[in-house]
Amino acid sequence: MTAISPLAPARFPDLPPVPGVRLAAAEARLRYRGRPDLLLASFAPETTVAGTLTRSHTAAPPVHWCRALLGEGSGTARALVVNAGNANAATGEQGHAAVRQTADAAAALVGCQANEVYVSSTGVIGEQLPVDKLTAALPALHARFADDAWPEAAAAILTTDTFPKGASATAEIDGVPVVINGIAKGSGMIAPNMGTMLAYVFTDANLPAAALGPLVRRGVNRSFNAITVDGDTSTNDTCLLFATGAAQHRRIGRAGDPRLQGFRAALEAVLADLAQQIVRDGEGAQKLVSITVRGAASEGAARKLGLAIANSPLVKTAIAGEDPNWGRIVMVVGRAGVPFEQERLSIWLGGERAARDGVADPAFDEPAAAHHMKGQEVELAVEIGAGPGSATVWTCDLTHGYIEINADYRS
Amino acid sequence: MTAISPLAPARFPDLPPVPGVRLAAAEARLRYRGRPDLLLASFAPETTVAGTLTRSHTAAPPVHWCRALLGEGSGTARALVVNAGNANAATGEQGHAAVRQTADAAAALVGCQANEVYVSSTGVIGEQLPVDKLTAALPALHARFADDAWPEAAAAILTTDTFPKGASATAEIDGVPVVINGIAKGSGMIAPNMGTMLAYVFTDANLPAAALGPLVRRGVNRSFNAITVDGDTSTNDTCLLFATGAAQHRRIGRAGDPRLQGFRAALEAVLADLAQQIVRDGEGAQKLVSITVRGAASEGAARKLGLAIANSPLVKTAIAGEDPNWGRIVMVVGRAGVPFEQERLSIWLGGERAARDGVADPAFDEPAAAHHMKGQEVELAVEIGAGPGSATVWTCDLTHGYIEINADYRS
Repeated sequence: MTAISPLAPARFPDLPPVPGVRLAAAEARLRYRGRPDLLLASFAPETTVAGTLTRSHTAAPPVHWCRALLGEGSGTARALVVNAGNANAATGEQGHAAVRQTADAAAALVGCQANEVYVSSTGVIGEQLPVDKLTAALPALHARFADDAWPEAAAAILTTDTFPKGASATAEIDGVPVVINGIAKGSGMIAPNMGTMLAYVFTDANLPAAALGPLVRRGVNRSFNAITVDGDTSTNDTCLLFATGAAQHRRIGRAGDPRLQGFRAALEAVLADLAQQIVRDGEGAQKLVSITVRGAASEGAARKLGLAIANSPLVKTAIAGEDPNWGRIVMVVGRAGVPFEQERLSIWLGGERAARDGVADPAFDEPAAAHHMKGQEVELAVEIGAGPGSATVWTCDLTHGYIEINADYRS
Repeated sequence: MTAISPLAPARFPDLPPVPGVRLAAAEARLRYRGRPDLLLASFAPETTVAGTLTRSHTAAPPVHWCRALLGEGSGTARALVVNAGNANAATGEQGHAAVRQTADAAAALVGCQANEVYVSSTGVIGEQLPVDKLTAALPALHARFADDAWPEAAAAILTTDTFPKGASATAEIDGVPVVINGIAKGSGMIAPNMGTMLAYVFTDANLPAAALGPLVRRGVNRSFNAITVDGDTSTNDTCLLFATGAAQHRRIGRAGDPRLQGFRAALEAVLADLAQQIVRDGEGAQKLVSITVRGAASEGAARKLGLAIANSPLVKTAIAGEDPNWGRIVMVVGRAGVPFEQERLSIWLGGERAARDGVADPAFDEPAAAHHMKGQEVELAVEIGAGPGSATVWTCDLTHGYIEINADYRS
């Protein structure tokens, strides 16, 4: 077992109950031994749902299942089943049948239709899911549903993660308090382009699916789509937002309604918190790296440049080596496909400007920059003088730990 | 000093003289100590030249210099100066002046115009080139020009490389024998998009620059643009082809002339040999990996998919771990941006088919595949059933050695 990431939070945060949500987790021994690997959640009737799913052309059967449910338009969810250890990906017809069998079993327990059961899997790709084992474990989970099993739920969805990830926030809608809880998993295969991990967010707000969709998409763009560990994107990436409607405010139909301002901010805070926790658990990560790009022609160009820096093995190993080698950043911004005038390029390491007007800044305080890079949180900034666009992305350094984890993961 | 790559050739190949080419290398101590770091070559009058240069938006001053010379259209070259240890990149006006000073000094020695002197630099980015030291070393080089200093020349252009790279071939043009010698450097920062390294090819063929251009571009596309070590592209990538015209055949004006068929094949063989040597020297490489993609809609789509696999840290670490984890290939081909039907996907590890029709092949001989992966040369193949396009690309595995070299390179 890998040691807990040195960037992990001190403890799992307190997640209060979300009215209308009950959960249980258990060890179904689908692959792992001695740890929970199966989560079952149930939702009050009329719970709405929206989400975003991987854009992979080899998306797994559970992703296809969720995409179909989200596309059907009923927009209600009564249960969620997540297993860890087996991704049920590249499993073909048998994989699709396993999802259906899982949904049927959960529906029978919860008392709903199979098309109200959302299903996710994460783990090794290309092996058939031991679905009989999975469904055999569900009744015991159902029997001990609780409203406070958040730490267990967050633990049951992990694979190579070294700590469980959770976040919570409260907001008011029309003067009525609502709660938002989120749990997530992810450490390798993290890259932009939607999901890039599993994340489930639960709220008692009373919002139709049509309002949830834009809220979750906007939030994902500013959180999970702004992080990268190794540039890879999974077959199973999923982010789902469930709203039970238990809160006693009047239903609000539009995501843009001004009464949702506080809710939007709280939701984005939960998503951003989870996203940063995923980077903190990047495989082998020793440092959390934030990269801000300013002066791009657009926010999109700024993000493209930021992610190019964040994905460069040469930059990530320089950070691991605590080497203020800003020349590697020059190299990456040059090949990122974003045009700019080299004479307008400036680069900061921590608060120290290393390059100005495209060349070494004679006032660069390299010892101060080197000191900054010895810390656990490293900040890089780049300005290219081409426009008003800016963006911040997050990544981690590339260390021996990444090699160890990934050269041995499956064997 | 890093140990020599386990994938290095047993010895530096024999490179015969190229009539019209003289070379010398020496230790100018620009950055390194105890090894050659400066190459000077001179060419017979009327030597023609063509080349390809990095597409980086932060291209170094020597790249701008060479681009200007190639663009001027005179197309003749009388000298080449290459230094290692300092890339003269992100050095602004002072960097441009250093290139000019280098060209002037070499021109005075060789007896030509400065605009007939090609200049390259490789090494650390963002530090000014100690150009006075460089030019002070040139006269001694000029004094001991030889036609057989190929091993020294190949050694003088290295940075983190662990072995010098050279290749040679002969061909006949119109019944007259010609020789083609090439030397190259590159181990990190290797990725598609032109050069991605330094490579210099020398021949006594009698060909105008207008014929050399298409020959070198086509050769580079099938060699250096089909390799990747870590997806990064340098500020200084350069490939130049010099033809002295000393061979006694009639000048041939067009690259497509059928009399050049043998020469084209020999040139491509030299370039492909150098490209594979670069991959064999990938930083930390323990295995040479060839990836063949078949059944894509086009050769371009096949290469895109191949390079996506070749650049995936999860695939490269699985290869380092000798783990026949074909699920990671499923993941990469899904997110590569090349559409296909998952049910038509097949994957081979060595000669063993691991996946067929998008799922695990029940006949997969995993022990045989695992045995194949223990070798120094690993072959992956992917078929996607979308068309006739195919391509082969080369990369290496991602190991602790890569982290060591790149976390410590500059400090």
